[in-house]
Amino acid sequence: MSESVYKIIEMVGASTKSWEDATQNAINSAGLSLRDLRIAEVEKLDLKIEDGKGTLYRARVKLSFKVLSD
Amino acid sequence: MSESVYKIIEMVGASTKSWEDATQNAINSAGLSLRDLRIAEVEKLDLKIEDGKGTLYRARVKLSFKVLSD
Amino acid sequence: MSESVYKIIEMVGASTKSWEDATQNAINSAGLSLRDLRIAEVEKLDLKIEDGKGTLYRARVKLSFKVLSD
Amino acid sequence: MSESVYKIIEMVGASTKSWEDATQNAINSAGLSLRDLRIAEVEKLDLKIEDGKGTLYRARVKLSFKVLSD
Amino acid sequence: MSESVYKIIEMVGASTKSWEDATQNAINSAGLSLRDLRIAEVEKLDLKIEDGKGTLYRARVKLSFKVLSD
Amino acid sequence: MSESVYKIIEMVGASTKSWEDATQNAINSAGLSLRDLRIAEVEKLDLKIEDGKGTLYRARVKLSFKVLSD
Amino acid sequence: MSESVYKIIEMVGASTKSWEDATQNAINSAGLSLRDLRIAEVEKLDLKIEDGKGTLYRARVKLSFKVLSD
Amino acid sequence: MSESVYKIIEMVGASTKSWEDATQNAINSAGLSLRDLRIAEVEKLDLKIEDGKGTLYRARVKLSFKVLSD
Amino acid sequence: MSESVYKIIEMVGASTKSWEDATQNAINSAGLSLRDLRIAEVEKLDLKIEDGKGTLYRARVKLSFKVLSD
Amino acid sequence: MSESVYKIIEMVGASTKSWEDATQNAINSAGLSLRDLRIAEVEKLDLKIEDGKGTLYRARVKLSFKVLSD
Amino acid sequence: MSESVYKIIEMVGASTKSWEDATQNAINSAGLSLRDLRIAEVEKLDLKIEDGKGTLYRARVKLSFKVLSD
Amino acid sequence: MSESVYKIIEMVGASTKSWEDATQNAINSAGLSLRDLRIAEVEKLDLKIEDGKGTLYRARVKLSFKVLSD
Repeated sequence: MSESVYKIIEMVGASTKSWEDATQNAINSAGLSLRDLRIAEVEKLDLKIEDGKGTLYRARVKLSFKVLSD
Repeated sequence: MSESVYKIIEMVGASTKSWEDATQNAINSAGLSLRDLRIAEVEKLDLKIEDGKGTLYRARVKLSFKVLSD
Repeated sequence: MSESVYKIIEMVGASTKSWEDATQNAINSAGLSLRDLRIAEVEKLDLKIEDGKGTLYRARVKLSFKVLSD
Repeated sequence: MSESVYKIIEMVGASTKSWEDATQNAINSAGLSLRDLRIAEVEKLDLKIEDGKGTLYRARVKLSFKVLSD
Repeated sequence: MSESVYKIIEMVGASTKSWEDATQNAINSAGLSLRDLRIAEVEKLDLKIEDGKGTLYRARVKLSFKVLSD
Repeated sequence: MSESVYKIIEMVGASTKSWEDATQNAINSAGLSLRDLRIAEVEKLDLKIEDGKGTLYRARVKLSFKVLSD
Repeated sequence: MSESVYKIIEMVGASTKSWEDATQNAINSAGLSLRDLRIAEVEKLDLKIEDGKGTLYRARVKLSFKVLSD
Repeated sequence: MSESVYKIIEMVGASTKSWEDATQNAINSAGLSLRDLRIAEVEKLDLKIEDGKGTLYRARVKLSFKVLSD
Repeated sequence: MSESVYKIIEMVGASTKSWEDATQNAINSAGLSLRDLRIAEVEKLDLKIEDGKGTLYRARVKLSFKVLSD
Repeated sequence: MSESVYKIIEMVGASTKSWEDATQNAINSAGLSLRDLRIAEVEKLDLKIEDGKGTLYRARVKLSFKVLSD
Repeated sequence: MSESVYKIIEMVGASTKSWEDATQNAINSAGLSLRDLRIAEVEKLDLKIEDGKGTLYRARVKLSFKVLSD
Repeated sequence: MSESVYKIIEMVGASTKSWEDATQNAINSAGLSLRDLRIAEVEKLDLKIEDGKGTLYRARVKLSFKVLSD
């Protein structure tokens, strides 16, 4: 049956390199305990600044994963 | 005491029939493990298309349920 | 003269059957005292849950109706 | 190569029966000249009123379809 | 390593006194099982009315807490 | 029959003390002529400033009340 | 006492000349029965088209007026 | 049959005179190849500045036109 | 080097004539001390009402100007 | 002449007591160097949490003040 | 004459490398048949996940291009 | 005392390489005259196109910095 149900959770990942990497970090952390992850939707991007320099890219994302399959 | 606390989760339900049915499916899946569900607020509706025909109605909803009662 | 003026009111209709029916109920109630209703715009849809089942579809709509014609 | 490109168009479908049917009508009309339709996202729902009765369900949707595959 | 990951949950707290107190109640309930809470962002405020008087202040908030540290 | 219809009106209440009090004032004024008030949803908060000091808290709220019961 | 309460209504005015004129028309129609109008906030502007030409400017506005003074 | 389907396109018109004129220019350009234009909804207004003076009014609009009639 | 940096400020201009004129007034005031103004984006339009008549058009705009060139 | 121009700045105030107090603190800080402050519009409210307790109320506000009078 | 008209289309580009690359892919595909492209505005970013890993960066963008010049 | 006040300014940074780099450029320019920068929140991303190629990544960001410390 194709009428699956998905659940969506919201996370913030961080990286010193890029927002792409920050999003991957959010997925990796969530992935430890969740299976069937499908997509990460970007909700908000920001950059933490220390001593006048941008040091930490952060991505707030919504992750959806299957909770009912067949 | 009436100062209850509620928690809100986000889910996507699907149905081949209607968005009403898709929302009911999201509730049914969540209901297995959650008690005191109160309301499902529609966040987004879409329709999956296969071979040029709309085949699966999907409803992204926010479900609220009581976590503290008395 | 075609420069009519419209007024817009906001209502919530409900139905045990569907959001279409909930919207019709909002119109029917408003229609008792208002003439020249033209359109119902959906602002928000939700579903009330009782005993783990979705029982009441609700539609919050904006109804526009003519207040100045010629 | 899986790096496809999609195009998104916006349409309004209508039906005397339901918003589900209105959305299907938008897809059917678009489908005549477009291939690879994938999804219809609901942007706005409304209901046209005549003589105090809701007569025409309308759904404004965004349709996405593949323009580059391999 | 400072590249922590945060999770965000959504809750509704209530109070007969103020929205500040309602937000504190949401935090207190969540705090029982969650550690490393950092911030509560207000999403929506409302006031329940009984017998023509506002009786219960409610705050819908997003709570973020650390899920990955070092 | 539980398929009630609600109407929603928008008001701005003010207070020299707090936004909670400003919201109560909006309810009290509306309450004189309306029965079955249920909820006040906050749309916008601001603070009027005179001589460099914040002097009047204002809350723009949406008030819903029953227009059809049984 | 300066803690006045305001009410807000939503109207659509139209004009063949400009959106400024359309807004004035909405105020004039409302003004017949309402006193203490203070401000018209623009919510949406559009232009009706007939025979390929824009013929009627329309402005959807929120009008606020005092309901409680001293 | 009244269940027509509409398509919506987005354009930016410009004028040295006014935003009304900018919107008319968007319609005129679109009108060359499109029939059955019905409405132009304003999405965004801005004003280009040269040498410290506002010189070009621009209106981003959504134009809807019939693609299926009977 | 073409990698310029722009700054954006928010202002409210007013005029008894039109929203176009209100926007020009915001630019003129800002222009006294700022060089390299490029664009004024409209954020909000309203109309102040006195004695039941709309008397002052106001435009809240975001003005961008170059702070780093080459 | 009543066609004044206003400027709007964005600030975050904080307080251990309430969001009202946090907003007053933002005004007080801005007031040191700005005259003719008129209004503080609330953009966002949050609450900083330390050791599982909400400790610092923060209000992000937009402050408008006159830059051109006569 | 500088009163050009622009058209805006919406596309989704994808890339295994970055959102910058995904946006470039959307432009390249559109560029085959469109001249005078001017800007790509990001509407939404997401990341497709397969086997617990983010595999495909996607960017939904609005592309504007000149349809009337002189 | 920890009840600091922050100010927020809006800037647009640009880069031929990436949106991360564009954001860093906005910070670097602002940093020349501002101390205590804390965070850059992304408001909007776009990409300027020349000769059919994306050439300049731009990031509109809100920068917050401390104006009151202890």
